[in-house]
Parts: sequence; structure tokens; C-alpha cells
Amino acid sequence: MEIKVLHQIMEWNEDVSAEVRKVLKEKNICMINLMGSPGAGKTSLLTALSERLKADWRIGVIEGDIAGQIDAERIAALGLPAVQLNTDGACHIEAMSIQNILPLLPLEDLDVIFVENIGNLVCPAEFDIGEALRITLLSIPEGDDKVEKYPLMFTETGCLVLNKCDCLPYFDFDEARVAANYETVNPGAPLFKVSSRTGEGIDELAAFLSEKIRKVTAG
Amino acid sequence: MEIKVLHQIMEWNEDVSAEVRKVLKEKNICMINLMGSPGAGKTSLLTALSERLKADWRIGVIEGDIAGQIDAERIAALGLPAVQLNTDGACHIEAMSIQNILPLLPLEDLDVIFVENIGNLVCPAEFDIGEALRITLLSIPEGDDKVEKYPLMFTETGCLVLNKCDCLPYFDFDEARVAANYETVNPGAPLFKVSSRTGEGIDELAAFLSEKIRKVTAG
Repeated sequence: MEIKVLHQIMEWNEDVSAEVRKVLKEKNICMINLMGSPGAGKTSLLTALSERLKADWRIGVIEGDIAGQIDAERIAALGLPAVQLNTDGACHIEAMSIQNILPLLPLEDLDVIFVENIGNLVCPAEFDIGEALRITLLSIPEGDDKVEKYPLMFTETGCLVLNKCDCLPYFDFDEARVAANYETVNPGAPLFKVSSRTGEGIDELAAFLSEKIRKVTAG
Repeated sequence: MEIKVLHQIMEWNEDVSAEVRKVLKEKNICMINLMGSPGAGKTSLLTALSERLKADWRIGVIEGDIAGQIDAERIAALGLPAVQLNTDGACHIEAMSIQNILPLLPLEDLDVIFVENIGNLVCPAEFDIGEALRITLLSIPEGDDKVEKYPLMFTETGCLVLNKCDCLPYFDFDEARVAANYETVNPGAPLFKVSSRTGEGIDELAAFLSEKIRKVTAG
């Protein structure tokens, strides 16, 4: 019975995500779904990327959190339109929430919407929210066994970003292990090494995203 | 409809967790549910604690992971009875899984069972698995805003352990902020600062757990 219900919810989510995707296509907006563990550095990465991308693209942000508006305040401080979604306990964002939030953003004036998903390496990967691209963020302190332990998050993503790479000297983190496991579950998908703190690798990731945004917004 | 179904599953989980608790009481076993984000250091903490506790207590371990048996192998290497539970995608452990696993452990020869829950700061907090104590693990690199963002995990726990404290000099982590927020959502609950790597604080945490195990196993 549990499985059947899950299936119904999933089907409903897929219907709504298709509607979200249709709206975004009409408005020529590229929506990017940013996922990772609590504390992987999603908001800091968004901040660093926005600095690089805002000269070329008009950016809006949906901040997902179970409670509070800490992250939306950080983004609003950058001068970007931001909406805080509180899931009130739910462990992921569903397409219905995005559908309800989109009218709160100035869609006519946006090229790209970043959605910062709930900090969770499991559940968000199961829910298509209508995005054009998924980014999975893994930070060095989390350890090098995460692709093996949480495969779906790495299988379903458009790219993998290793964050907090300035910490590599201080942790036992085998980059080759992660790269090999990622290639196994998601062959050919790109991997970026970055540090939001030092700026390392942010330009390369921003260039990759710009190319994606260009393709999507060209219609 | 979604809420109703969740409620049914929760009620069912509560029935089973009561059965699990009854079995453990009959066997005078203290079950401890260890929760935290991916990469917070749950397995390393278990390893460090086991070294301290194994002289006084007979320890068994249930390792929860979505996939793989990396962690159970690490525990078995310590000479402790370990069972790997693979949830095959599910983001938390439910009481039914514990009920099915218990007969696989040598219950007559155990005083304490550690359950390492799925790496997830959200969903596991919602599910009573029949434990006598919950430990929530938060590692320094995850950041100091986690109590505000993921309140249930910190409200429902028997103690909070700040792990990787040897990293404090390298991260912007405000201990006072975490302590104050934790005191707000869980007044009077203990907080431990540890580093599994350096051993800092492990003795104090082990002493706290020994006292808890003593009370529970005394019946």
C-alpha cells in the first residue's frame, strides 16, 4: 500500500512539473535545481555564481528550507529577487510548490531561476520540479564515499560540483574514487572542482552554466 | 489525501516501534539511534565510542545505508556484530526494518545496539524506531545555522554531538549560536563537543552513554 501511494504522488508531481516546464519555456527561463547535503555550501555557491553570471543574465532565486529565511536574506542582500519557500518539515521541494511560487517572481524580467533545494542527499533527487538542469553539490568534508551511498543523487544530475576544495589538504578525500564512481553511475557527465571561499573553479562552472542558459533561453 | 496517508504510515510505525521496544526491554538491551547529515562522521564516531565502551558493554551495530555495505564492513573490522540494512532508496529507517533485523543479531549476548541511521538531517527524526536514546550529530563543516533550518532533528534528540571539532579553527562556526538555538528547541538537553579523529571529548560522551546504558539495561 505504501508503494502504491508513493506512485500516485509521484505521478501527480510529474503532471505538475510538466506544467511548470511549459510556463518556463513560454517565458524563456532556464530553471536550475541545486541539491546537496545540509552544509554542503549551496547558498555560498549561489552567491559566488551570481557574482559571475549577473552581468550576462537576469537571475531570480527560490530558497527552499524547512524553516526560517536565513538563505533568502543572504540572496536578497545581493540585490537579486528571492523567494523563501518553507516546507514546514518536508524533506524536499515538489513541483506544486514551484508552481505556486513562480507568480511571486518577476518572470518577465528573468533569464534564470536558481532553486536551492532542501539540504538532503536523498529525497530531492526523486522529485522533478520542472528544472532544465540539476546540479549536485558534494563538499570535501562530507567524505569520498557518498556516490556509493547515495547513488540516485549522482545518477540524476546534470553535473557534479565538488565544493570546499580549499579543504582538500585537511581531509582524507580520494578525488579519484569519487570521479570513478560518478563516471560509473552517470557516464560522461561533467565534474567541477570549486571553492566558493577562494573562488577556485567558479569561472569554469559559471561558463558551463552560461552555455546551458544560452541554449534554454534561446527557445 | 497525502497527509492522511502519511498519518497511516506513522501510526503503523508507532505500533511496530512499541513492539521493538518490548523485545529490547525483555532482553535488557539499550538501543541508540545515531542520526546526522551525510558525512557528519557517524561511523567514525561509532568506531571511537566502541573503543571506549567495549570493555564494559557488549555492543552490536545496525548500519543503515541506501546502498552498499561500506559502513558495516568498517564496524565488522572492529570485531563487533554488525548488520547492514540497505533501504534501497528510502531516506530513513522505519521500525519495521529494525523488527526484521533484530533476530539477525545475537540478542542474548548484547547490552547495547547502535543504529546508524541514513545520512539525512530531516526524515529520520520523524520515525521512532524503538530506541532508548537518540543522538544527533552535527559536524563543524556543515555550518552553525543547522538548528534553525532543521529544527525537528534537534528538538527530538536526547543529546547533540558537535563532531569534527578539530576543524573549528578553519571554519566560520559560531558555537554560541548553535548552543543557544539548541537550548531554545530542546531545553536542558546535553551538548558534547568531540573529534573522532583526535579523540577530544569522546570520553565524556562515552561516560554519558554508559550511564544511560546502565539505567536501561538494569530494567
